[in-house]
Amino acid sequence: MIREQLGQRIKELRNATGLSQERFALQIGMDRTYFASVEAGRRNISICNIKKIADGLGISLSDLFKDL
Amino acid sequence: MIREQLGQRIKELRNATGLSQERFALQIGMDRTYFASVEAGRRNISICNIKKIADGLGISLSDLFKDL
Repeated sequence: MIREQLGQRIKELRNATGLSQERFALQIGMDRTYFASVEAGRRNISICNIKKIADGLGISLSDLFKDL
Repeated sequence: MIREQLGQRIKELRNATGLSQERFALQIGMDRTYFASVEAGRRNISICNIKKIADGLGISLSDLFKDL
């Protein structure tokens, strides 16, 4: 399902930055527990929050969704 | 802003299918007025509904967000 796929993808890319969930969430101004549940695929995340995460990862939305 | 950009993009792609808002919304099982407000950029649409629209347009999420 897309929520899980996106969460997994975000997790991989966030891990690649070397930042913890907490540090990354803080950096993009997102609640840490909310961000953790997004990575776990438990949130039907909105476009504005997806954009916030893509910006924090320094990639385009198109790249974030690549191969999903 | 990303909501407006995405709405505009969806509108262009939906127009290219030749289907009306109403017909397209019906086809993907989405409320017509909700879909209209998405195209107008007034909704912070969720990933599950974005996926539903991309599937209806027959394109990948990555292609939907191309150049946004």
